[in-house]
Amino acid sequence: MKALVLSPASRLREVCSDKCRALLNEHFDVTWNETSRDYTKEELAELVSDVEVMITSWGSPSLTDDVLSKANKLRAVGHAAGSVKNLVPKQIFSRGVRVFSAAPRIALSVGEYCLAALLASLRYLPVLDASLRAGQWRELGLKGRELTGSTIGIISASSTARAFIKLLAPFQVNVLIYDPYLTEEAAAGLNARRASLEEVMSCPIISVHAPKLPATERMLSRELLALIPDGAVFINSSRGSVVDEQAFMEQLQSGRFFAALDVFEKEPLAADSPIRSLPNVLLTPHIAGASVQGHLSLMEEVVKDMIQGLNQENSAYEVNERMWEVMA
Amino acid sequence: MKALVLSPASRLREVCSDKCRALLNEHFDVTWNETSRDYTKEELAELVSDVEVMITSWGSPSLTDDVLSKANKLRAVGHAAGSVKNLVPKQIFSRGVRVFSAAPRIALSVGEYCLAALLASLRYLPVLDASLRAGQWRELGLKGRELTGSTIGIISASSTARAFIKLLAPFQVNVLIYDPYLTEEAAAGLNARRASLEEVMSCPIISVHAPKLPATERMLSRELLALIPDGAVFINSSRGSVVDEQAFMEQLQSGRFFAALDVFEKEPLAADSPIRSLPNVLLTPHIAGASVQGHLSLMEEVVKDMIQGLNQENSAYEVNERMWEVMA
Repeated sequence: MKALVLSPASRLREVCSDKCRALLNEHFDVTWNETSRDYTKEELAELVSDVEVMITSWGSPSLTDDVLSKANKLRAVGHAAGSVKNLVPKQIFSRGVRVFSAAPRIALSVGEYCLAALLASLRYLPVLDASLRAGQWRELGLKGRELTGSTIGIISASSTARAFIKLLAPFQVNVLIYDPYLTEEAAAGLNARRASLEEVMSCPIISVHAPKLPATERMLSRELLALIPDGAVFINSSRGSVVDEQAFMEQLQSGRFFAALDVFEKEPLAADSPIRSLPNVLLTPHIAGASVQGHLSLMEEVVKDMIQGLNQENSAYEVNERMWEVMA
Repeated sequence: MKALVLSPASRLREVCSDKCRALLNEHFDVTWNETSRDYTKEELAELVSDVEVMITSWGSPSLTDDVLSKANKLRAVGHAAGSVKNLVPKQIFSRGVRVFSAAPRIALSVGEYCLAALLASLRYLPVLDASLRAGQWRELGLKGRELTGSTIGIISASSTARAFIKLLAPFQVNVLIYDPYLTEEAAAGLNARRASLEEVMSCPIISVHAPKLPATERMLSRELLALIPDGAVFINSSRGSVVDEQAFMEQLQSGRFFAALDVFEKEPLAADSPIRSLPNVLLTPHIAGASVQGHLSLMEEVVKDMIQGLNQENSAYEVNERMWEVMA
């Protein structure tokens, strides 16, 4: 079976392990991208006429209708990166092309980020570190909080939320989830219970995992943001667009709760954004899903899964049209 | 039974819950410290002649031989704080006084700190936060690391190490422990295996939990510190004296690994300590064991346990002479 790997060597070093390279060569007649950059759409259209499997990652050009119309033998796309939406149009499914996305592997890194950010926020680690660097010792008089036994509100039972919830197991926390698609049984399977958005936003710890969709645009409105309790920790590792950023900024400026923010409405965050100087935030540049180990296993995981799927075996990473509609 | 609570109201607000106050009043004829400060040794000596149970905490005066010689009816001391060593001399045991220490409850806060510091270090959270505050986005080009699947070296199987190890359960880590008192069976019970100090110091993640004892003074020598692998994360939440600080500073200045340091040889850390300006450290002012919830449950936990012990029931917090020798 003819496979085309779209990513150049510089990207493969990050996302394709030696084992993955061997796996691809073993199962496919592979054409590697020997240029030092990603293909343009035009170049790609020239290359696809006999390709049956495409392996993509960050930087790969979108599989436009133009490209797909020339890829008559294409059976599957394996995407070794996050969101598959910018890569493949919804129409790909009606062409009978199967799509596999390694996004669930990224969820583990996001889950670890969420626990890191939560514990660091509860214990004021970045605030204390900055204070010690400024020559202080305990002048701030801050006393941290334990996570054990807390109540955590989760917005959207996405793969990142599930990865986070798994890591919370030893802390004996009480987990509430708002997700319009989650059944009571599925919630119980996560050792959680379903709750309204209002209930979740009233928890002392809140973690946002909602995908970027028209329905989630500014879903966390001024009214809902006002429900965040004093002393709470609010974590956003999903998308800035989910939050009414202006109303959120006003809440943050009151200093009444702490927020760990990895995502922003506009990225990169404006250099003069007032959010950069707030004392009650932990800021990171949209890195929740990024880790050395996570990235290096992406292509291997999605290729393995795609091979299983093409062999009519169970696949964990296949995306269908219905999922495409509601996913990040 | 007559009980004397040594801590004034300002301290009790932190360490004595309403439930604990009720518990004490229910089981004992309690004398509360109605002054607005801790007693002096001299004042204490005046108060103890008919006291059978003493409840102490941070700030309580040492139970010197002079005090103990006047406390002829004393049966038990319940210490709602960390180390009991500065409070009671070893000779207390030969007087037949039983000692209960809430230190194991503090271990949970330390365990949470260790996981917080570890995950925050692996993901460079304080470094990235400072970078965003300085107007940057991804200029540092840092990619974090996952904890899942890592190998962790633990120095001393203390109560804080055990609390930390419990929280690591979902991460499927490989735990090596150096502890001269730990049996192979006890290590297996912690899902860990025993290892030499050299092996532990060669792990990609190292966490120090050794108590301050003559035998642990600068135990982490220049030679052992040189074993720390490049890219490692080294966490010290026990005592600064365990590490040869000068040799450690030289290792840190090479920038080849990251350290989360909550304790230092001299505390408070000197305002002009060069450690304060290193980029590869996360600094906190000896707060690993301090948390709102942890402190507020200290007296309740030790009083409950002491009541059980005095009733010849199982006690989790009683300290005997042999333990006193090797504990922090």
